[in-house]
Amino acid sequence: MRNSRRGQVDPFIVMDVMEAARRAEEAGRHVIHMEVGQPGTPAPQGARTALARAMKDEPLGYSVALGLPALRQRIARLYGDWYDVDLDPGRVIVTAGSSGAFVLAFTALFDAGDRVGIGEPGYPSYRQILRALNVEPVGIAARDENRLQPVPGDLENLDLQGLMVASPANPSGTMLDKPALSSLIETCAARDIAFISDEIYHGIEYESKAVTALEITDDAYVINSFSKYFSMTGWRVGWMVVPEAHVRLIERLAQNLFICASHAGQVAALAAMECDEELQGNLAVYKANRTLMLEGLSDAGFDRIAPPDGAFYVYADVSHLTDDSRAFAAEILEKAGVAVTPGLDFDPHRGHGTIRFSYARSTGDIREGLARLKRFMQARG
Amino acid sequence: MRNSRRGQVDPFIVMDVMEAARRAEEAGRHVIHMEVGQPGTPAPQGARTALARAMKDEPLGYSVALGLPALRQRIARLYGDWYDVDLDPGRVIVTAGSSGAFVLAFTALFDAGDRVGIGEPGYPSYRQILRALNVEPVGIAARDENRLQPVPGDLENLDLQGLMVASPANPSGTMLDKPALSSLIETCAARDIAFISDEIYHGIEYESKAVTALEITDDAYVINSFSKYFSMTGWRVGWMVVPEAHVRLIERLAQNLFICASHAGQVAALAAMECDEELQGNLAVYKANRTLMLEGLSDAGFDRIAPPDGAFYVYADVSHLTDDSRAFAAEILEKAGVAVTPGLDFDPHRGHGTIRFSYARSTGDIREGLARLKRFMQARG
Repeated sequence: MRNSRRGQVDPFIVMDVMEAARRAEEAGRHVIHMEVGQPGTPAPQGARTALARAMKDEPLGYSVALGLPALRQRIARLYGDWYDVDLDPGRVIVTAGSSGAFVLAFTALFDAGDRVGIGEPGYPSYRQILRALNVEPVGIAARDENRLQPVPGDLENLDLQGLMVASPANPSGTMLDKPALSSLIETCAARDIAFISDEIYHGIEYESKAVTALEITDDAYVINSFSKYFSMTGWRVGWMVVPEAHVRLIERLAQNLFICASHAGQVAALAAMECDEELQGNLAVYKANRTLMLEGLSDAGFDRIAPPDGAFYVYADVSHLTDDSRAFAAEILEKAGVAVTPGLDFDPHRGHGTIRFSYARSTGDIREGLARLKRFMQARG
Repeated sequence: MRNSRRGQVDPFIVMDVMEAARRAEEAGRHVIHMEVGQPGTPAPQGARTALARAMKDEPLGYSVALGLPALRQRIARLYGDWYDVDLDPGRVIVTAGSSGAFVLAFTALFDAGDRVGIGEPGYPSYRQILRALNVEPVGIAARDENRLQPVPGDLENLDLQGLMVASPANPSGTMLDKPALSSLIETCAARDIAFISDEIYHGIEYESKAVTALEITDDAYVINSFSKYFSMTGWRVGWMVVPEAHVRLIERLAQNLFICASHAGQVAALAAMECDEELQGNLAVYKANRTLMLEGLSDAGFDRIAPPDGAFYVYADVSHLTDDSRAFAAEILEKAGVAVTPGLDFDPHRGHGTIRFSYARSTGDIREGLARLKRFMQARG
């Protein structure tokens, strides 16, 4: 049967790592998982209790396309609590994870042939979703001196209809502070470039609070999710805040493309927003893990790293150790029993010399993983 | 902020009806809901029990993109049980509802500018999703003598890259029998037209079993869902069966566009497949409702209807009563207190003279709704 050209997107390389790790485990080996981009913790207890109750009392049929009104209101309130931003709940759109938000945003904003800037390194699916929608991703090679985030100067000679930024970023964990974010937003506004801010790692910050684009402008798309801070990856509930004039546009697209996000997931998400104590407990684990990672990775010989401001990743330059991060990751899995992600997923041009380590799992796992990495590097010489 | 042309899809007209019904209810009126396209019943008890248990024992993080292996296997077994088709579970892909399946199928099969035939009347989102993806929907005016289903002759002068059919169809409830489905599939195969079969209403049939495209060919995309027979609309879990050569293509798209379907929903769906007794009970209600509808609608004066083979809709020609189905639906809501869907959602050309009645709710509601419709028509004269 025929197939399309645009459907031929690249695989996630990390999936090959995960499959290799699974095979190793099946063969009886013990593997430390530093490749995965998700918390090891379940949805907070309060979220699960609320859903168990709702399953007894409610049919949980389709919700309206924009999401449960109570959830939209509660999300709006989060912007008051976290950023002191007064947000109209009418601008909040509940989505099928941040993935669903990307599809809605890109479809609403861009026509076939439009060009959207994305920082490299960055989340690989930006590029693939754009391609599948016939939008051209324009990679922006972010520089070390800018902590791997794009700056206005990077956009100068580019013809763009959109710019996608993430802070804290995946894989680097670096953040854009308010002046840096403001200057990007101003540059885009002046050139009619739609600005999309991926804020999925907000709430997981270590030194200072992440800045939302909504502190600076109402004229942006802001995307977030219950997957990371709220520890609900598999539930597939995210949200998006859009300019008021775009709400109806997104509503119609959401009605047709998704109908609604999982009603059960929405019920759980609403309750998760009252579970700060448990979630702060998760955060304390990430914080401890981060401290261990910064020390332990350096100690093992992975010393070309920038301390992450947020998220739960360390992105390491290993170009002095290898020019093939894929083979290197396979070697680390094989010899050290630690699964890590080759940088090629995040940066198709320079990622052959980088590796991403995730520290989202338990502190015990992190300790063991670091010890294995140290022994591996010593043996490697 | 800028927006795209392709994002400007049409609204669901039924949403206006639902909003008007909600306002009427808020103002204290009692409304019978014959507009909604979903069961009034919750997910089966066994599904909810299984999820309650899993929420205690499992983190429910991301599943693999193609879905939980146990669920894919169980779905494959359904094809043996229902159709005596031996299906490789490797060809089954779990999706975020049938909506997610449409997005994946259209993206995998069609490039921007391609043309896909859809029967009119038909499910409105086919058209809107195709447009949002820059694919051109080509409406095929299905004829009464073909029970509102497309036939090979309808395709003769059309340049198409795909054809989308639904059996039982929404809004008509009519089915394609094996010869009719086979002839469409053969015509498409001969002309390299990708064939997509929407089988979401399978399991809800009244006279004979619906035929799956997989009884005829492996070279089709088959889309189904847990929303209708399994009574799980709000859970957003569907599935798709694709040719073996397309599995990797879909896997990569699904990884990037969706990551996975709701893990909680997948756990519930797997258990729902063992709840036949409860589901057959739901079906008995639809069956009783259908009998009441066929008699009661005729009796009320809505006598231009074809008996539906499946699903839970009656599509009525009301062109002798109105040339504005939207205004007519508003009048029925206002005067009879019954919410119905104007045909324009399903057929932009001839839908000004048609109405869809849903009988998915309780038999008590159906009786009351029919009584109201009869009084309304008598008063209208």
